[in-house]
Amino acid sequence: MSLEVHPVAGIGEVRPGDDLAELIAASDTVIQDGDCLVITQKVVSKAEGRLVEIDPNDPLSHKPLVEQESVRIVRRRGELIISETEHGFVCANAGIDLSNVERGQAALLPIDSDRSARGIRDRLRARHGKDVAIVISDTFGRPWRRGVTDVAIGCAGIRAIADLRGTTDALGRELMVTEVAIVDEIAAAADLVMGKAKGVAVAIVRGLDPEWFGRGGVVDEIVRDPSEDLFR
Amino acid sequence: MSLEVHPVAGIGEVRPGDDLAELIAASDTVIQDGDCLVITQKVVSKAEGRLVEIDPNDPLSHKPLVEQESVRIVRRRGELIISETEHGFVCANAGIDLSNVERGQAALLPIDSDRSARGIRDRLRARHGKDVAIVISDTFGRPWRRGVTDVAIGCAGIRAIADLRGTTDALGRELMVTEVAIVDEIAAAADLVMGKAKGVAVAIVRGLDPEWFGRGGVVDEIVRDPSEDLFR
Repeated sequence: MSLEVHPVAGIGEVRPGDDLAELIAASDTVIQDGDCLVITQKVVSKAEGRLVEIDPNDPLSHKPLVEQESVRIVRRRGELIISETEHGFVCANAGIDLSNVERGQAALLPIDSDRSARGIRDRLRARHGKDVAIVISDTFGRPWRRGVTDVAIGCAGIRAIADLRGTTDALGRELMVTEVAIVDEIAAAADLVMGKAKGVAVAIVRGLDPEWFGRGGVVDEIVRDPSEDLFR
Repeated sequence: MSLEVHPVAGIGEVRPGDDLAELIAASDTVIQDGDCLVITQKVVSKAEGRLVEIDPNDPLSHKPLVEQESVRIVRRRGELIISETEHGFVCANAGIDLSNVERGQAALLPIDSDRSARGIRDRLRARHGKDVAIVISDTFGRPWRRGVTDVAIGCAGIRAIADLRGTTDALGRELMVTEVAIVDEIAAAADLVMGKAKGVAVAIVRGLDPEWFGRGGVVDEIVRDPSEDLFR
C-alpha cells in the first residue's frame, strides 16, 4: 500500500460565507472516492466567519480573546499562554492566530470542527457524488520537542484512531502499542506539501487503508479524558 | 510539489550485526537520489544489538531497564512510567518495548540515533552511490491527546526543523509560527504505510522540498532545552 499526498491548488482567498466544498470541487485537482482531504483550520474558520476585529497596532490585542476562548490556563510564561479550549484541545493561545488573516483580524477555532468536517463531507457527497474523508488540521506545539507539527482538530468519514487491540505483531505476540492516532499522522503528512508560506490550504492524501474509513471524530476519540491525563 | 510514500518490502527479520544499508539496498524497492528513508527504531536497535534478556514470564521484568535507561522520571502512575532518556526524549518506558522482538527480549533505543542515521546514509552513499536522507522513527504517546504517533529520534542528510523565520505568509505578513518539525511529520507520514502489525520497518518518502536536505540532527534540533520547557 503506497500513499500519494497532493496539494490542492486554485482555492484562492477564502471569505466568510464561502462554501469550502464548492471551492474544492471547483479547484484544478480531481478528487477520487476514497481520498482523504486535509483542510487547514484557517480556511475553515474564515469560511465560518470565525474572525474577530483586533487593534492592528497592539501586538497583544488578541490576548483577551485567548482568555475568552479558554476554559483553563494550563501554563503561562511571559506572553505565551498554553490553555485548554472548549473542545478539550491544549494549545498555545487557544488556537487563535494572526498569520494568514488580514491585518486587524484574528481567526478563532471553529466552534465544532468535527461538525465542520461532516458538513464539507456531506456536501461533497450530495452535490458532487464524491465519497471522501475530511480531516481539519491545525498547527500545534508540543511539550519537550521543539518545532510545531500539524495535527487534526476535526474529522469526518474516517476514524480518528486505528485500534490495533487484539491484533498481533509480526512475530505473533499481542501488540502492546495499540491505538494509532491516524488523523494526526494524516494531518502531518499533508503539511509536508502545504508549507506555511505557500498559501496552500487543502491537500489530498490518497491510498489510505480502506478499513480506516467510517464514522469518526477528533473530540470524541483523541481528546484525553482529564482523569487519564498526567499533564493537565 | 506532491509526495509519495512507499513501504519497503523484503527486508525480513533483522539480527544483531546486520547491515541495514545492505538490507535496504538489496530490497525489492528502488531507491532514488533525494528520497528520504524512514527506518523504525526497532530494526535499528536490533541491528546494533541493543537487545537485553528479560524474564519472559514476568510482565514487569523490563521495569528495572526503564530506570536504568532514564535520567529522570517525569511522571509515574501505576505501571506507566514517563521518563527522560539520555538523549533528552520524554516518552513511556524510556523507549523500551517488547513488541516485534523475540519473547524474553527487550529492545533499548539506539545509543545515538542521529549517529545511527548518519552511518546508514554514509554506507548507502559510499557503497551504492545513493544520496538519500535518513529518518529513524519511534512510536510515542503525547500529553492531552489519545493515541500514539510516530516521531523522529534520529536523522541524517535532512534538517530536523524547517525554519520559516523571516519568510512571509500568503498575505505578506511575517509568519508567527516559524519552525516546523519536518522530521516528525515525515515519520508520521511513513507510519501510515507501515502499520504496526505488518512487519514493514522501512518506508520511502519521495518528493520532499530539496531545500530541507542538508546537515541535521534530532537531538540537537528537536530536544527542547529544559530551561525553555514548561512541562518538565
